[in-house]
Amino acid sequence: MIDAAAERLKGHVRRTPLLSSPFLNDIAGRRVWVKPECLQHTGSFKFRGGWSAVSALDADIRSRGVLGFSSGNHAQGVAYAAREHGIPAVIVMPSDAPALKIANTRALGAEVILYDRGGESREAIGEKLSRDRGLTLIKPYDEPQVIAGQGTTGLEIAEQAAEAGVEQADVLVCCGGGGLTAGIALALEARAPGLRVRPAEPEGFDDTARSLASGRHEVNQTESGGLCDAILTPTPGQITFPVLKRLCGPGLVVSEAEVLDAMALAFRRLKLVAEPGGAVALAAALFHGGQIEGEDVIVTISGGNVDEAVFARALARLGKEDV
Amino acid sequence: MIDAAAERLKGHVRRTPLLSSPFLNDIAGRRVWVKPECLQHTGSFKFRGGWSAVSALDADIRSRGVLGFSSGNHAQGVAYAAREHGIPAVIVMPSDAPALKIANTRALGAEVILYDRGGESREAIGEKLSRDRGLTLIKPYDEPQVIAGQGTTGLEIAEQAAEAGVEQADVLVCCGGGGLTAGIALALEARAPGLRVRPAEPEGFDDTARSLASGRHEVNQTESGGLCDAILTPTPGQITFPVLKRLCGPGLVVSEAEVLDAMALAFRRLKLVAEPGGAVALAAALFHGGQIEGEDVIVTISGGNVDEAVFARALARLGKEDV
Repeated sequence: MIDAAAERLKGHVRRTPLLSSPFLNDIAGRRVWVKPECLQHTGSFKFRGGWSAVSALDADIRSRGVLGFSSGNHAQGVAYAAREHGIPAVIVMPSDAPALKIANTRALGAEVILYDRGGESREAIGEKLSRDRGLTLIKPYDEPQVIAGQGTTGLEIAEQAAEAGVEQADVLVCCGGGGLTAGIALALEARAPGLRVRPAEPEGFDDTARSLASGRHEVNQTESGGLCDAILTPTPGQITFPVLKRLCGPGLVVSEAEVLDAMALAFRRLKLVAEPGGAVALAAALFHGGQIEGEDVIVTISGGNVDEAVFARALARLGKEDV
Repeated sequence: MIDAAAERLKGHVRRTPLLSSPFLNDIAGRRVWVKPECLQHTGSFKFRGGWSAVSALDADIRSRGVLGFSSGNHAQGVAYAAREHGIPAVIVMPSDAPALKIANTRALGAEVILYDRGGESREAIGEKLSRDRGLTLIKPYDEPQVIAGQGTTGLEIAEQAAEAGVEQADVLVCCGGGGLTAGIALALEARAPGLRVRPAEPEGFDDTARSLASGRHEVNQTESGGLCDAILTPTPGQITFPVLKRLCGPGLVVSEAEVLDAMALAFRRLKLVAEPGGAVALAAALFHGGQIEGEDVIVTISGGNVDEAVFARALARLGKEDV
């Protein structure tokens, strides 16, 4: 399925490069290889899954349009994929979502339906829309074609690691619901078995690390409020978690201060804009090296959709600390 | 020579992608294609020229080491290329250069020799070093092997434009001494004659635009003080200018405010860190569209080595203006 998704994505997806910096190597104490999906269309890897799912639909069903939830990266990925396919996309967003994200999603051609986060159920709204208008729901991670699309990132990592001469390494993946993590793990299982995936998460939202440790679905105590908005899911997905259990090494957990430092270092050393949720894997590689094995480590920067105020907080750390 | 430089750079240079954003297209009124050399090793295209020149030296001469001037991107490109070749590099820098740039150049393995910008001549220091220690001077732009190295950017643009279906377009290049501009123009003359290079410069430092208009070397009134430090040269190069005269269209000139806006948009829409001098071509594409022809425009972002304080100035414009 991942190979088939790669075939459908060909000519549409960006093959993001594999970057490095001697300065980051020095901090990490090993070679750090960075896969910057912030450079993907719509600023995150979510375009891959969105395109994969939209393009996999039967043409008749697809032509009626697709439906997505959330104000986040998945919404933009689905909206952009739908526009490129010339089909309608409806995105259900909370009415208190940032105005810029609403404007962006509309600018990508989607119809945005706002709902009251307090009083309305987005699932009920979505079900009604789906029934009335024949829209197909594209789930953000618990959907095989979405996981297959995210897995194309893993196919590229396998090829690029081989080109760089890296055969054994931990691959740290920013992990929310686990779609990217599971997709990359499945791709590497087939193409680069010496590369082992490990999820990276922020403190307080380490449901995947704890679930991998206990062997069952652990749930975060809170669902919002964290800096890393893109990857704050309550518990690992139903489809993704069995994959993670079978293929991934232990999870890594980083602090928000480390996330901001990693964003600052991505700015200074890689010239990349990483969003907080997209920088957790880099933070783990740079500041938790004691938990990583081998001479090389590969990390995803999964997205770059960050407000300037948050980015300015990261930049401010460059002045104060020896980052 | 450009093909030969590309051969020597193979396996060492990064093939930077060709990026785009529907939001930038909307602002520019045409499709904007971005070649982000800020993602190159050392954060600018200068690595290409540095590597090309170092690798072209006779092995005996090379082993004695190389010499470069300036605190800027060329110094880092030469230092990094020398380190990867396992040879000494000496960089002569003004003693009032930013501490970070001095530290970076040292961290890249170069010996840094500081001089007093007021009382000493860096050329005299360089000549003495060259004589005493057998170092070869690598000039920043008036050096054929450096121009050939920068020209490899043009080979990639020719291939990537063809892949994107772009046969006719202006190619806007951030222009200081003209090494990158001349190199790309020569590469495109051979490989993509429908692509026409046009230099982009900041107001007050538009020596190349004025020189192209008058047909002779015009000189800037001031040599320092501008925001776009990476591309503030007094007049076009002796070797580069005849190439520009023969191959380039009219120059484009942008304001510093437009440069900051372009940096902000590169942050928001491309997830890239552009330095001011590296953003002038994007600024020209976005804000001077009336002087550009065709449905497509290609721009270089030539570097991303910017201090956080300057970057914060660009980010601040996102809040205030409708960028």
